[in-house]
Amino acid sequence: MTVPPSAPGPLPVSFDDVLEAADRLDGVAHRTPVVTSRQLDAVCGARVFLKCENFQRAGAFKFRGAYNALSRLKERDGADAVLTFSSGNHAQAVALAASLLGLHAVVVMPEDAPAIKRAATAGYGAEIVTYDRTTTSREELAARLSSERGLPVVPPYDHVDVVAGQGTAALELIRETGSLDVLVVCCGGGGLLSGSATSAKALLPGCRVVGVEPEAGDDATRSFRSGVLHSVVNPDTIADGARTPSLGRITFPIVMARVDDMVTVTDAALVRAMRFGWERLKLVMEPTGVLGLAAVMEGAVRAPGARIGVVISGGNVDPASALRWIA
Amino acid sequence: MTVPPSAPGPLPVSFDDVLEAADRLDGVAHRTPVVTSRQLDAVCGARVFLKCENFQRAGAFKFRGAYNALSRLKERDGADAVLTFSSGNHAQAVALAASLLGLHAVVVMPEDAPAIKRAATAGYGAEIVTYDRTTTSREELAARLSSERGLPVVPPYDHVDVVAGQGTAALELIRETGSLDVLVVCCGGGGLLSGSATSAKALLPGCRVVGVEPEAGDDATRSFRSGVLHSVVNPDTIADGARTPSLGRITFPIVMARVDDMVTVTDAALVRAMRFGWERLKLVMEPTGVLGLAAVMEGAVRAPGARIGVVISGGNVDPASALRWIA
Repeated sequence: MTVPPSAPGPLPVSFDDVLEAADRLDGVAHRTPVVTSRQLDAVCGARVFLKCENFQRAGAFKFRGAYNALSRLKERDGADAVLTFSSGNHAQAVALAASLLGLHAVVVMPEDAPAIKRAATAGYGAEIVTYDRTTTSREELAARLSSERGLPVVPPYDHVDVVAGQGTAALELIRETGSLDVLVVCCGGGGLLSGSATSAKALLPGCRVVGVEPEAGDDATRSFRSGVLHSVVNPDTIADGARTPSLGRITFPIVMARVDDMVTVTDAALVRAMRFGWERLKLVMEPTGVLGLAAVMEGAVRAPGARIGVVISGGNVDPASALRWIA
Repeated sequence: MTVPPSAPGPLPVSFDDVLEAADRLDGVAHRTPVVTSRQLDAVCGARVFLKCENFQRAGAFKFRGAYNALSRLKERDGADAVLTFSSGNHAQAVALAASLLGLHAVVVMPEDAPAIKRAATAGYGAEIVTYDRTTTSREELAARLSSERGLPVVPPYDHVDVVAGQGTAALELIRETGSLDVLVVCCGGGGLLSGSATSAKALLPGCRVVGVEPEAGDDATRSFRSGVLHSVVNPDTIADGARTPSLGRITFPIVMARVDDMVTVTDAALVRAMRFGWERLKLVMEPTGVLGLAAVMEGAVRAPGARIGVVISGGNVDPASALRWIA
């Protein structure tokens, strides 16, 4: 797939879609806090505003997109059950959103998914279907289950209602902080990044939007630079939320049109950012969650004296793993 | 020292003292957030409000009392230098407050104090004097230095201006939440507890105030029950902020008059509460910081359906220690 920077035609998600998602999420999603720190500002040489989606329901921004998509499926199509594939935050988000909306959720996850994530998903009442990662493609299994059981699929990022929901975090951030010079957002499949860019470019046309990937999983950065969709296979990074193979059909054109730059950071930089969060900010953030923070702290994004918004995408990290990395 | 529950005469710290401290701290101390969580409420069977002093400057409530006391010394006595003894959060708080007020701070700490705490204190510009814990009493060393160098001593808790400053956290909490049925506060030397109780009893006379100690350092609980000051020597607990030997001359009578009950929790309960904080609340809290939270989560404080305020006293815990406790 090739998307030139000046692709014609309307993009699949508009700012109005984000505003409608915000209405659906009002009173359901947490309006997460924006955290600032003198010490962080000193490290970065800028004024930094952290939108803390680690405090979101189920511990990550994913609840926004999942609830928006499930809510639309119920309203518009009368769905009473949904299916998704994810071993991570999206699975828990779909399970929680389904339980709030009275829907049945079927979640496809690998049989070796961490027990803590499986238990959390099951704890929200979802039905879990496992598969062997070495022999089965989750997309194919999901497609087969969807067809056999007549269930609509809510994928982790490549879906207009998911992207629109994810855009509400940056919407809230900008409404709270006012003008920002730069908005820095982590990037896996690009759902949060494309949604955030949609809000930022509508509210603050002069704000530079920068996506951040782990160095080992730089497919979106290469796609962004070349205009041709690149992919990676199971990249070796602790940022598990950014191990996605590539941007999607929905997210790629939005990233091309509304994002100004893409950068990468190393896993070592992620660990340093998590340690700073633990020691100085007293915040538990997961590796994917600090992609943007690490980029700003380590100079991958440079904007001396600027007002920089950073979306902290989530905080679901097993304490023993986190402490082993940072201790 | 014996203090009957109905000790005559005015107590050394009044609510007016707390209000004056709040004026001094306005715009200097952080107005820390009050965090709530559906999951926490479900665990506790109550509506729980966490006053998060782990987000306070220098990572603990101690900044409130230190800044109030140093500010008074500067205003009233024209002091240009102060002395304190502490290896923990009070040392960093005094060092930071002194730097903000343009005072020189001398901090006496044991030569085996954790390097991270020593570095943080020195980082705020304080002069550090070390001693050998096995051969020297810190109080005696501090008294000698104070006399030789003419420096006023700001002790960690047994000081009216320190207690008044500590009372401002509960003041903010109650102003934000409105009515509370119970206020739960950790207790080491009793500075935070006596300050908090002073605010609570003035604003909410019907609110039950409960102090919480580690089981191994239950001196204040025994003192409270007997009316006779008990002490402990270097109790074996991970709650380092509550390893204090006893309540003080200022804090004991206030605790007797304004606190309704004292309870203890085990170190294992502290670890469970910290883990809950990291996994579910995404908050880094230190062992002493979760004394109140552990008491509410584990039923040492029972108040089904009630509105319970809990002061989280601090978040200064080094990742390596945290890993040892939970791994």
